[in-house]
Amino acid sequence: MKPSAETMAQAAEALQDALRRLHIPFDAAQFQWQGIVPVQYKEHAGDARGLGWRGVTRYSLGRPPYIEASFALRYFEIAPDGYSSLEKHAHVHLVVVVRGRGRALVGERVFELQPLDIVYVPPLTPHRWVNPYNEPFGFLCTVDAERDKPQPVSDEEWDALRANPETAPYVF
Amino acid sequence: MKPSAETMAQAAEALQDALRRLHIPFDAAQFQWQGIVPVQYKEHAGDARGLGWRGVTRYSLGRPPYIEASFALRYFEIAPDGYSSLEKHAHVHLVVVVRGRGRALVGERVFELQPLDIVYVPPLTPHRWVNPYNEPFGFLCTVDAERDKPQPVSDEEWDALRANPETAPYVF
Repeated sequence: MKPSAETMAQAAEALQDALRRLHIPFDAAQFQWQGIVPVQYKEHAGDARGLGWRGVTRYSLGRPPYIEASFALRYFEIAPDGYSSLEKHAHVHLVVVVRGRGRALVGERVFELQPLDIVYVPPLTPHRWVNPYNEPFGFLCTVDAERDKPQPVSDEEWDALRANPETAPYVF
Repeated sequence: MKPSAETMAQAAEALQDALRRLHIPFDAAQFQWQGIVPVQYKEHAGDARGLGWRGVTRYSLGRPPYIEASFALRYFEIAPDGYSSLEKHAHVHLVVVVRGRGRALVGERVFELQPLDIVYVPPLTPHRWVNPYNEPFGFLCTVDAERDKPQPVSDEEWDALRANPETAPYVF
């Protein structure tokens, strides 16, 4: 389901207001930031192979023009049994886990992740975030604000990831 | 004390190696990242008014050319009774607290900070991080990789911050 234009506009306005106050308090009991509105993961997940996803929520914590910078900071949370799209893109991710445990498929590897672990996703590297556990899995993800759109992995990448016993369980 | 060129080069090489492995595990017992070498806060704190600092350690967690991005991610830790320089610069900070508690002077305000609180420091806004507590205070800080050098606050800013009862205790 694509979030409505109204929902997106409300979330953007709330973010702008929160950043103008300079301090965005965190509510540990709710695991939410004051005034920050979660939105669904993507406007369009697409129908291509591997682009399915489940139980992913995105929070924008700062991006231009609301901050005078060239980067954007987001928080993603993946519900138990959830997963993000298997995708690649030219822009990189630098991720810091802040909640729960999870796994990351990055390139030819699968990493087991715990709080404050860092993951670097280099350019055009297939990746997927997975939560096989019973508690929410959440991470901060910094990106360049100007960036390309995600794309599905190629046929060759798909076949290689399916043939690799480490990555195969996460390629669907 | 300025870290030696050798120390800086070793830290940079260790960071590059860690990012090449894509996953940088965090050791919660030591509160350190595997292969990430802490360095002292600054090469030159300077002698200008307000630029003193105490008990600040910096960890670089990702920056070009080791990541193909235009931002840098750092972790700063401030020991009990420590504080950073009172400074300003055109580039912004977007901070996420991840350890302990502390305070931030930002512009005309002082914020009390807890884990996962966010702080935005807009362009040319005087700021200082302070740890008045008994445990280490640590935060992630994202910046544009290309950025200007910190500068001391102006005479007018100094006087205004000293005249403001909220900020005065942190202006020295």
